[in-house]
Amino acid sequence: MMEYPSKLIERAVGEIAKLPGIGKKTALRLVLHLVKENEQTSHALAEALVAMRTGIKFCRKCFNICDDEVCFICASHRRNQGLICVVEESKDVMAIENTGQYNGLYHVLGGVISPIQGIGPSQLQMESLIMRAEQAGEIILALSSTMEGDTTAFYIHKKLSHLPVRVSSIARGIPVGGELEYADEITLGRSITARTVYSIQEF
Amino acid sequence: MMEYPSKLIERAVGEIAKLPGIGKKTALRLVLHLVKENEQTSHALAEALVAMRTGIKFCRKCFNICDDEVCFICASHRRNQGLICVVEESKDVMAIENTGQYNGLYHVLGGVISPIQGIGPSQLQMESLIMRAEQAGEIILALSSTMEGDTTAFYIHKKLSHLPVRVSSIARGIPVGGELEYADEITLGRSITARTVYSIQEF
Repeated sequence: MMEYPSKLIERAVGEIAKLPGIGKKTALRLVLHLVKENEQTSHALAEALVAMRTGIKFCRKCFNICDDEVCFICASHRRNQGLICVVEESKDVMAIENTGQYNGLYHVLGGVISPIQGIGPSQLQMESLIMRAEQAGEIILALSSTMEGDTTAFYIHKKLSHLPVRVSSIARGIPVGGELEYADEITLGRSITARTVYSIQEF
Repeated sequence: MMEYPSKLIERAVGEIAKLPGIGKKTALRLVLHLVKENEQTSHALAEALVAMRTGIKFCRKCFNICDDEVCFICASHRRNQGLICVVEESKDVMAIENTGQYNGLYHVLGGVISPIQGIGPSQLQMESLIMRAEQAGEIILALSSTMEGDTTAFYIHKKLSHLPVRVSSIARGIPVGGELEYADEITLGRSITARTVYSIQEF
């Protein structure tokens, strides 16, 4: 094992290496970079992280990350209020917004149903979605095209089947097994416009 | 450009993306990971960074990163006090220590001579090296095998030519143009044991 010249370095490397996709070697490189920079650089980074984590809020309508009670998308009068796009995470909202192809609202589930990880509908923003769906004209499901994503789509479709709302899914133009965040803008944009309406036979 | 759902997110992404090798997309992924984790995770990370940066010291003998006035290598009585290995950065000390092939002391220059970047001998720990060399039996140069590394090696060799000290270089087993930190342990270890004594004709 790598022996560190300082306990302070070791601790900082340990904390950074807890982040996903960052190993001890990369963490060490980042720490040694901060040692070379002035103290203000480390302070600004630390301050931004703490301010972000303690100050961050979730929109009480769509559960997207935001700075206020309601996110800027839900607060906008220019948005089609009858259209709700259901996504797993805030990063998916950002990815779809980035396409410039969508003018409705969102609903951030906070994940997908995953029996292996012990995540059921009650751990997700599912009740609030069903309540919102009563007022909506169409629900677009923009979930990852994985087993868990498909399970979640099926669950939502069944839960909404007694409502007059139309339930659609983004087109399977994005690679099967892929995650939304890595899709290119054109593919993702097209998958929004060419969404397909669910028929029960599909399942 | 990517539109962020929160100013706090945007600021945190901006600070993280200042780190070398981390772009805005990776920074966003890390920030959203911290949002999912509890507040304590962000606090521990921020605290470790600030404690590291404000508390870090440099050994007054060899200028390696350390927690005290003198690093644990310089403070050790088991080390060969007559052997000094000259490196660019603290990470190079860690890399050589990791081989388990070296039992002498170190001297961390803090970089290499680079006219393009405006780094001359006076910005490096060069005077202190020359003073230490007067007491040493051998100086091993373990600098990157780049133009700047070779220039620095040549400079040190000339500066020490009037002293009885032997000046050697680690074997050029490491790839030309490569940096020490990415060399594997076996190659780096062999380059220490098979170091070559400088003859003036080499330059």
